Amino acid sequence: MNDIDLKNKLNFSTWITDVIRYNDLDPNGHVNNVAVCTFFEDGRVLFRDRHFRGQVKNVLTGFVLARYVIEYHRPLEFPGSIDVGTTITRIGRSSYTFGQGVFRGAECIATAEAVQVRIDPESGRSLPLSDEFKAMLEAAASPAARK
Amino acid sequence: MNDIDLKNKLNFSTWITDVIRYNDLDPNGHVNNVAVCTFFEDGRVLFRDRHFRGQVKNVLTGFVLARYVIEYHRPLEFPGSIDVGTTITRIGRSSYTFGQGVFRGAECIATAEAVQVRIDPESGRSLPLSDEFKAMLEAAASPAARK
Amino acid sequence: MNDIDLKNKLNFSTWITDVIRYNDLDPNGHVNNVAVCTFFEDGRVLFRDRHFRGQVKNVLTGFVLARYVIEYHRPLEFPGSIDVGTTITRIGRSSYTFGQGVFRGAECIATAEAVQVRIDPESGRSLPLSDEFKAMLEAAASPAARK
Amino acid sequence: MNDIDLKNKLNFSTWITDVIRYNDLDPNGHVNNVAVCTFFEDGRVLFRDRHFRGQVKNVLTGFVLARYVIEYHRPLEFPGSIDVGTTITRIGRSSYTFGQGVFRGAECIATAEAVQVRIDPESGRSLPLSDEFKAMLEAAASPAARK
Repeated sequence: MNDIDLKNKLNFSTWITDVIRYNDLDPNGHVNNVAVCTFFEDGRVLFRDRHFRGQVKNVLTGFVLARYVIEYHRPLEFPGSIDVGTTITRIGRSSYTFGQGVFRGAECIATAEAVQVRIDPESGRSLPLSDEFKAMLEAAASPAARK
Repeated sequence: MNDIDLKNKLNFSTWITDVIRYNDLDPNGHVNNVAVCTFFEDGRVLFRDRHFRGQVKNVLTGFVLARYVIEYHRPLEFPGSIDVGTTITRIGRSSYTFGQGVFRGAECIATAEAVQVRIDPESGRSLPLSDEFKAMLEAAASPAARK
Repeated sequence: MNDIDLKNKLNFSTWITDVIRYNDLDPNGHVNNVAVCTFFEDGRVLFRDRHFRGQVKNVLTGFVLARYVIEYHRPLEFPGSIDVGTTITRIGRSSYTFGQGVFRGAECIATAEAVQVRIDPESGRSLPLSDEFKAMLEAAASPAARK
Repeated sequence: MNDIDLKNKLNFSTWITDVIRYNDLDPNGHVNNVAVCTFFEDGRVLFRDRHFRGQVKNVLTGFVLARYVIEYHRPLEFPGSIDVGTTITRIGRSSYTFGQGVFRGAECIATAEAVQVRIDPESGRSLPLSDEFKAMLEAAASPAARK
């Protein structure tokens, strides 16, 4: 699943909308790179909310954001709103990767990959994903999962 | 104009919508009081944008937020969106006051008054508002200004 | 206790320091009013942490920020650090009020009063403060409580 | 310069300190990943401030953050302070890369690489770095540049 083009809106299964705030601006008058991270976070949180709900609780706890790669393609201005598309780009042994894009209309503003690792809260070591959880990730990433 | 009920949606001339972000939450799971301040700020910035545009530039520069009174009426949860209503509650000699309300549907979450003072950037002293600017504030506050 | 001058550093019992962040700036190059609210919040949180620790847990839960009055006296620039002084300015039947000041060196940048009301989480109605809690507030506000 | 170990404090030439805020926490009680990005940003901004000051202005304008890779190694709690170390890990034809680490005492919380590209503001195309600017980056990255 790794070669998904994150600048192509057709590749995302799940969408949310955020409104740009005056507080997101930095002294040069553009939306700050940190604010773009809050958009991506909303995409991931609501993706989990929509697709992982049916999962038993102990499958879900203990995931941590381990690696986060963001590419900024275009500056973003206030006011306005953006759309965040989210999908799954990789399912590993003990981790999976979100692929995301922030769009203003047809324009891609930024893309990101966020690696979530399942951790044993006591030992701090990684734990394998269950087959059930992997199947759920697979289903959530497919275009058929779109809402 | 002082006795406007800021919990009544009919009293606002200008509205914007903001989307609640996961990043707005604090450890108790509610939207933090600071995030509510960013909603009010968006209401004021876009009120100025809509109504003060035609004004000559030197009438607008040099306003500072001097006093800000916020009342929190109800907790707010993620996810969802809120509406911010903004109007003018007072026009003084060298200052004016925004009246604002944050609403989720019919429910009033918080209300605020924000006093903006016109300041001479060099001396730091307050400057009187022009008659033209006062007339514009008056017009912007009336229900007829609604968009 | 109401007439405490919040611009006078000698009137605060408890101090914390915050570092100004680039992210606190808004497009005009000054620290945004919302960032100043995060400084005040840190002052209140750490005041509670230092002084209310010994209290039994059910005395502490259920306080909400009901009213928040901020006065901005001077613009603030990046980089640098500020000090937040916090004390108690009022002890009521079911609420108490924090008095606070943000200072850069000797200069007062902003002052605030924050009313915390004790709420019954089920009924949403206010609950009286216990005598024990009032005595603790009294002690925390006195200069002898300084750390 | 690419193989610098960003978890080793000895590899950074320039340091700043940030104070963790209550507002940085998310509902699970840890410092949010977005707040960690504001720490890294402060490190980059103040690195530029200290080392690039003598540069003529047109060499400095037009840099954009193009790619940002963050690795989160440990959770971070409130209250407390962190140190951000910053250095240069790569000098390219039209871009350079900041290497950074956030530390709490000896513990490495997160590391990051941030690629800054020099852009022609009119055409949007990348522009080569001058030899003078490259020499300055080289000097700023060396341990001798430490302050």
